Amino acid sequence: DSTLKVFTLNSNIELAQEIAKHIGIDLGKSSVTTFSDGEVQINIEESIRGSEVYIIQSTSDPVNEHLMELLIMIDALKRASAKTINVVIPYYGYARQDRKARAREPITAKLVANLLETAGATRLITIDLHATQIQGFFDIPVDQLLGVPILANYFEDKKLEDIVVVSPDHGGVTRARKMADRLKAPIAIIDKRRPRPNVVEVMNIVGNIEGKTAILIDDIIDTAGTITLAANALVENGAKEVYACCTHPVLSGPAIERIQNSRIKELVVTNTIVLPEEKRTDKVTQLSVAPLLGEAIIRVHEQLSVSKLFD
Amino acid sequence: DSTLKVFTLNSNIELAQEIAKHIGIDLGKSSVTTFSDGEVQINIEESIRGSEVYIIQSTSDPVNEHLMELLIMIDALKRASAKTINVVIPYYGYARQDRKARAREPITAKLVANLLETAGATRLITIDLHATQIQGFFDIPVDQLLGVPILANYFEDKKLEDIVVVSPDHGGVTRARKMADRLKAPIAIIDKRRPRPNVVEVMNIVGNIEGKTAILIDDIIDTAGTITLAANALVENGAKEVYACCTHPVLSGPAIERIQNSRIKELVVTNTIVLPEEKRTDKVTQLSVAPLLGEAIIRVHEQLSVSKLFD
Ligand SMILES: Nc1ncnc2c1ncn2[C@@H]1O[C@H](COP(=O)(O)O)[C@@H](O)[C@H]1O
Ligand SMILES: Nc1ncnc2c1ncn2[C@@H]1O[C@H](COP(=O)(O)O)[C@@H](O)[C@H]1O
Repeated sequence: DSTLKVFTLNSNIELAQEIAKHIGIDLGKSSVTTFSDGEVQINIEESIRGSEVYIIQSTSDPVNEHLMELLIMIDALKRASAKTINVVIPYYGYARQDRKARAREPITAKLVANLLETAGATRLITIDLHATQIQGFFDIPVDQLLGVPILANYFEDKKLEDIVVVSPDHGGVTRARKMADRLKAPIAIIDKRRPRPNVVEVMNIVGNIEGKTAILIDDIIDTAGTITLAANALVENGAKEVYACCTHPVLSGPAIERIQNSRIKELVVTNTIVLPEEKRTDKVTQLSVAPLLGEAIIRVHEQLSVSKLFD
Repeated sequence: DSTLKVFTLNSNIELAQEIAKHIGIDLGKSSVTTFSDGEVQINIEESIRGSEVYIIQSTSDPVNEHLMELLIMIDALKRASAKTINVVIPYYGYARQDRKARAREPITAKLVANLLETAGATRLITIDLHATQIQGFFDIPVDQLLGVPILANYFEDKKLEDIVVVSPDHGGVTRARKMADRLKAPIAIIDKRRPRPNVVEVMNIVGNIEGKTAILIDDIIDTAGTITLAANALVENGAKEVYACCTHPVLSGPAIERIQNSRIKELVVTNTIVLPEEKRTDKVTQLSVAPLLGEAIIRVHEQLSVSKLFD
């Protein structure tokens, strides 16, 4: 069997180091810099001929830089005779552009899939795709891992009482159900609707939250508009306290300010996306996906089923 | 025959407007913005079903942004049933990563070619590829236009006397020869060599420059190290005055400072790359490639030979 090598690019260096440690190897030697004109320059500083290579890179902000780094690295590995090129994308960017919602829209999530395959990726390992259908955009094997068990374990350890897991919209009910199963709790749904066009949305809560500890769950929290409105509505409607959690902390624009000013008591996220210093407030707890990704890499390398990791 | 439409992305908006004007049409309606998290959002605001579409975009700095804008636009056009998708890339970025100079290097110029084809480009129109071989990286038709005629015309109109066209290195001699033919002038070459490893380079000038007006020509001027050293060497060796010119003014890092402090009297460039305010000094003259690209688009659309444009 062939050597397992793990390389990192620039998006998640610490996570990659943690993953390598979990596996019990050193990160592969490489450097990613830019030329004076901004073009990406990649140097792979050890032989990878015949190796099974795993590259860790989230396509988080700056998404186009991170994606091009990844594509160029794949190209370099392919030309250097890697046996397999397994891309580990903890956060898959452009995942919300996954269908034509209006005329003449791109489907960038599919474009990205095609670009990765064209460059030479032979497998994708990722966590919580915004839409599971994105797996079908690929013709190479895709292993999708889940953030819910990590988030659920954290709340389990907190030994909260009288919990209700809340989905902030209709699209997230399946995810809330998975979380609720693990916490042996009921679910509720924030049911937004617009009575007439050009009239403000009405927030209706389906399910019993009165006096309960609510845990809002979503896959991505971006500008945090939805989640903070939901949290405030829960408190106003009688919830005792509100936690929020998500796998991918995009947290762009006004997100942190909104969370700080909201009724959210604690926001629990994972490290699929690095949080810069200014986003690490007292309200934000970050959990590591390194053990999950490390195990997944070991299992893929040993040709074992990855779905075991969800039990 | 089908409608001709020209769209612009963000790299060269003024050039695209000039091209549309030359052709005698309005630019297609579209907008390219970013979501709060930095992901590119493209809106095509008119039907392009069955149209022959030309997109103007240089993959200049920020190269990864500009390239992703282009790929996403191609994807959107493809899904909106454009008949042909002709990408007009006045400056083709990553062109210097065109071969494996060292072990385990990517060949990013080829990767970019593959990405453009994967997205759905059906033709490439470009100017002065750093290496002509890059044409062979594509399986779609490539029309490569030349900057030399535009630059030569400018110097012809100046009615300079006793000219010598100088190549700043061995790689550029063919280009210098083309320029010299148009100006009916002789050529000279800056012949750099390193007598022994780890010893400073010796600059030797092959050809007669004594008392002459030297015109240095290159395809790309990036940090301007080579060109300013060459200019100074020419003056020190007896040239009367030194002009410099290139097609693609990358002008990154210390370039403008070096040019201002050099013996270069005037630097003549084209607008394949936009010059921001701070790079527009009294020494820099910018010529437009809009008539050339406009003619090329008209000829391609009418299925006429583009090589006629070089006569
Ligand atoms: N990066 C982004 N930021 C905000 N909205 C986006 C982004 N990418 C796509 N969208 C929009 O989000 C919607 C899809 O979100 P969803 O309904 O949650 O799958 C579409 O209308 C997209 O236009
Ligand atoms: N954007 C860039 N800026 C500076 N050097 C580059 C760039 N891209 C590639 N190179 C290097 O330039 C060399 C090729 O230039 P050339 O010999 O002029 O074709 C190679 O050694 C590349 O590593």
